Amino acid sequence: MTVTVPALAAASADAPFERVQLERRDLRPDDVRIDIRWAGICHSDIHTKREEWGTAHFPLTPGHEILGTVVEVGDQVTTHQVGDVVGVGCFVDSCMECAPCKDGEEQYCLKGGIGTYGVEDYYGEVTQGGYSGQVVVRDHFAVKIPDSYTEADYAAVTPLLCAGITTYHPLKEHNVGPGTRVGVVGLGGLGHVAVKLAAAMGAEVSVFSRTDAKKEDGLSFGAKHYYATEDGSVFSDLAGSFDVIVNTVGANIGLDAYMGLLDRGGVLHDVGAPEENLSVSAFSLLVNRRSLAGSMIGGLPETQEMIDFAAEHGVTATVEVISADQVDEYYDKVVHGQVRYRAVIDTETL
Amino acid sequence: MTVTVPALAAASADAPFERVQLERRDLRPDDVRIDIRWAGICHSDIHTKREEWGTAHFPLTPGHEILGTVVEVGDQVTTHQVGDVVGVGCFVDSCMECAPCKDGEEQYCLKGGIGTYGVEDYYGEVTQGGYSGQVVVRDHFAVKIPDSYTEADYAAVTPLLCAGITTYHPLKEHNVGPGTRVGVVGLGGLGHVAVKLAAAMGAEVSVFSRTDAKKEDGLSFGAKHYYATEDGSVFSDLAGSFDVIVNTVGANIGLDAYMGLLDRGGVLHDVGAPEENLSVSAFSLLVNRRSLAGSMIGGLPETQEMIDFAAEHGVTATVEVISADQVDEYYDKVVHGQVRYRAVIDTETL
Repeated sequence: MTVTVPALAAASADAPFERVQLERRDLRPDDVRIDIRWAGICHSDIHTKREEWGTAHFPLTPGHEILGTVVEVGDQVTTHQVGDVVGVGCFVDSCMECAPCKDGEEQYCLKGGIGTYGVEDYYGEVTQGGYSGQVVVRDHFAVKIPDSYTEADYAAVTPLLCAGITTYHPLKEHNVGPGTRVGVVGLGGLGHVAVKLAAAMGAEVSVFSRTDAKKEDGLSFGAKHYYATEDGSVFSDLAGSFDVIVNTVGANIGLDAYMGLLDRGGVLHDVGAPEENLSVSAFSLLVNRRSLAGSMIGGLPETQEMIDFAAEHGVTATVEVISADQVDEYYDKVVHGQVRYRAVIDTETL
Repeated sequence: MTVTVPALAAASADAPFERVQLERRDLRPDDVRIDIRWAGICHSDIHTKREEWGTAHFPLTPGHEILGTVVEVGDQVTTHQVGDVVGVGCFVDSCMECAPCKDGEEQYCLKGGIGTYGVEDYYGEVTQGGYSGQVVVRDHFAVKIPDSYTEADYAAVTPLLCAGITTYHPLKEHNVGPGTRVGVVGLGGLGHVAVKLAAAMGAEVSVFSRTDAKKEDGLSFGAKHYYATEDGSVFSDLAGSFDVIVNTVGANIGLDAYMGLLDRGGVLHDVGAPEENLSVSAFSLLVNRRSLAGSMIGGLPETQEMIDFAAEHGVTATVEVISADQVDEYYDKVVHGQVRYRAVIDTETL
């Protein structure tokens, strides 16, 4: 039986969000139905809704940072039970048969993984995201929220489902651990989680932000050092002194300056998606055999690993809890870098 | 006692090479004096001589692919003996005390390694390279030519000192081995050696060259496949089917097309040094978590490892032996891609 739930939807790129009733499908045998408690606002929600990344499916209900409670499970579901607190991130289905899926990297599914909102799924329905009362997803795509988090943590845990895994992956890929010299470029939704996770891994973390405005916060998140890049001298002073730099800024930041910060074998890992091409001089790579890498979020096993790790180390995002009425306003705030550091919608206000 | 030897030198960027007498220094305690038998012509010799990479020191004797016989050793030299056949590559000295030097990556020496020609060394003298009868280098910077090579191989072994190590390093860095799907972009001096080394490692090697003109050669070097990129369809047909691509072309090749050839976790490794910046879309990196890497030649331990590996597998470069009179002519031929595949100067013609 389908279930009708309250949600926010936008009718077009320019339209404000409106309260609507959304129909959630009857369960397939491997589905779980989740009562959503919290839904994070990711910058990509805004890009999608505003059609900055191409044509969107309207009406559109964004949201791919979802935390809630399982309220119904399909006949074949064995991994989740009613009452489990779970999270859903950027994907809700994939073919589960190709090499990436078998390797637990469903985000690179060769058939094309099904995004949490705004895409036509394998059954011809357009997915709708987390700014709603419920969501139904294939069991594999819900991760367990560890018991060590309490209900008071849940709003702040929610952003880990996208911002957490997106930044956890590069840290793991490049073997960040005790003593690794990690730079995080940008202290926004992604960046502030990157700082917390890298610090929890024991790394020596430095924040690169345009101004000193977020210095106190950056240090409180676990960074050892904070550099305001408007003072260009940091690039010469710190030349060759980083192992891994995670770039969370989705705009042209002048990569060569950051490449110059990398020591031998260092990597600048991009998780932002600027429209302009990334541009580096060959010299930046050849000297100190550096590399420029990128990745998209992470697979489901790694998402579970990330959230288990975060729970173990008491890591959550730093959030502003907002009501459904504030979403349009917060879209503008996100774009202007005024949210500290992730907005999370209280779905009880829908 | 200094020794005067015949050499080729250019008096300016535009001047042709002339026969000159070059003075080689008296041995320091850790020096070896080498009678040069063969000297390869690398494209960077041309860039340097023509001042395409900045102001050069004239008169200039290029050459950093050197093979010859030790004829004298300093008092403290224990690693080489008179009569040893040795090779010298791109560096002849480094501080030996910094972290890169201690790690055997002298090419990234923090004090600045001393290039084989055209740079002022730690003693205030300008180094002169291999287009000459002798060279004197610090013992550490001469590698042993394995006994399994015969004198008839030596001319073709010579280019390994630069082209060999420059392409061996990325193959090893990215764990190329049996079954690795390796693409080599460009079938010139570097590219043809990359093909041979990767094939010797058991990789499935594909050549990407502009036209079919070198197809037969490419396959004879050990490539399984050869693709002419003037037929743009190769980029869509082969999307996502390579693990490692080594780019040996020192010009803008349109990197995004090649990035698209990489499977999950794949790397495009640049060893060319185009003047224009390398430019890739963030999307090229994010999808399949690809990376763009680079490196400069390799350290001395790895150079020895490379040449031992090459000898074990019977790998040499494919060369044209030329006389001292032909060097100017061959500079033009290198620039126009007309050498198959590396020109090596017979120093008996000096």
